[in-house]
Amino acid sequence: MSLELLKQRIRTEGRVYPGNILKVDSFLNHQIDPVAVREISDALAGLFAADGVSKVLTVEASGIVLACGVAERLGVKALFAKKADHGNVAAGRYTAPVRSYTTGQSYTISVSAEYLTARDRVLIIDDFLAMGEAARGLLSLAEQAGAAVAGLGFAIEKGFQPGGAQLRAQGYRVESLAIVEQMREDGSILFRS
Amino acid sequence: MSLELLKQRIRTEGRVYPGNILKVDSFLNHQIDPVAVREISDALAGLFAADGVSKVLTVEASGIVLACGVAERLGVKALFAKKADHGNVAAGRYTAPVRSYTTGQSYTISVSAEYLTARDRVLIIDDFLAMGEAARGLLSLAEQAGAAVAGLGFAIEKGFQPGGAQLRAQGYRVESLAIVEQMREDGSILFRS
Repeated sequence: MSLELLKQRIRTEGRVYPGNILKVDSFLNHQIDPVAVREISDALAGLFAADGVSKVLTVEASGIVLACGVAERLGVKALFAKKADHGNVAAGRYTAPVRSYTTGQSYTISVSAEYLTARDRVLIIDDFLAMGEAARGLLSLAEQAGAAVAGLGFAIEKGFQPGGAQLRAQGYRVESLAIVEQMREDGSILFRS
Repeated sequence: MSLELLKQRIRTEGRVYPGNILKVDSFLNHQIDPVAVREISDALAGLFAADGVSKVLTVEASGIVLACGVAERLGVKALFAKKADHGNVAAGRYTAPVRSYTTGQSYTISVSAEYLTARDRVLIIDDFLAMGEAARGLLSLAEQAGAAVAGLGFAIEKGFQPGGAQLRAQGYRVESLAIVEQMREDGSILFRS
């Protein structure tokens, strides 16, 4: 799937919900099209192929297939942070709070200190970048582990929300395959060129 | 990864926790080894290659990468049921209650009626089969949709727990790549031959 085809699928299959929520449940967030996953993963992996990535980090659930695909292509392992209610995290784990823009709820993400270490150079992968809350949580986990961060890669960025701009202003390399510039109430979706 | 290698990895990397809990966090349940995922997926897909599967059904989170891998190999799409607190499910979805043996907690799984229909012939894929609670929830979703069930495939079955025997007694085809017969407190793991 070329980038143009990804944008076309977002345009035709993406659904816009109140509150600037965009879902691509037909191929990524609920139903999963392995062909799309493969193409998105390959494109993201290609962008970071020369960056010495030792581990791909994501958070459950939708990001896992992309992280696994990117990790396969880069020849490394993936690690997905688990979501838990606050206070329900075992010892030996790094934790970070995340507030979901979509649901309005807060939760804790965590990874085992065993699988994320100061020897790692991490690539953070997720399906969506919007407010950047999950990304900041994952960056916090990497920082707690003393891991370096090669960058962050997303299938879809909502460019009219501040997450991407903030992360780039902090100096992180952020790559998004499709950046949505505007979503209209009639369901039409405009991309940044 | 041959079946022998899968068993060897479970034996060396699997960890036994109180309450007959087995975790393979080093390659499947937290950290993900894409090579292992590929081999497990290919093996499961091979077992159901001639069964006319139109959709692979699983539940978040650990099962998703295997379901996606199996779906890719079978040339179909995967669908992952989402977990929600009870009562927090949108309209147009099939729902089923699941009680987690590992955590002791109950939750609701659901899929959109749009992506699971009476035209589907479903293969249920998950990482673990133990008490069979998640599998029964997924079977309930398939039944509500009027979908046929080609069978169920698992990476690891805990053969000393009743899920597999019950599902087979109900007439379902259940395929597990590695069946754990006994887990001892010293961490040793015995497989059914």
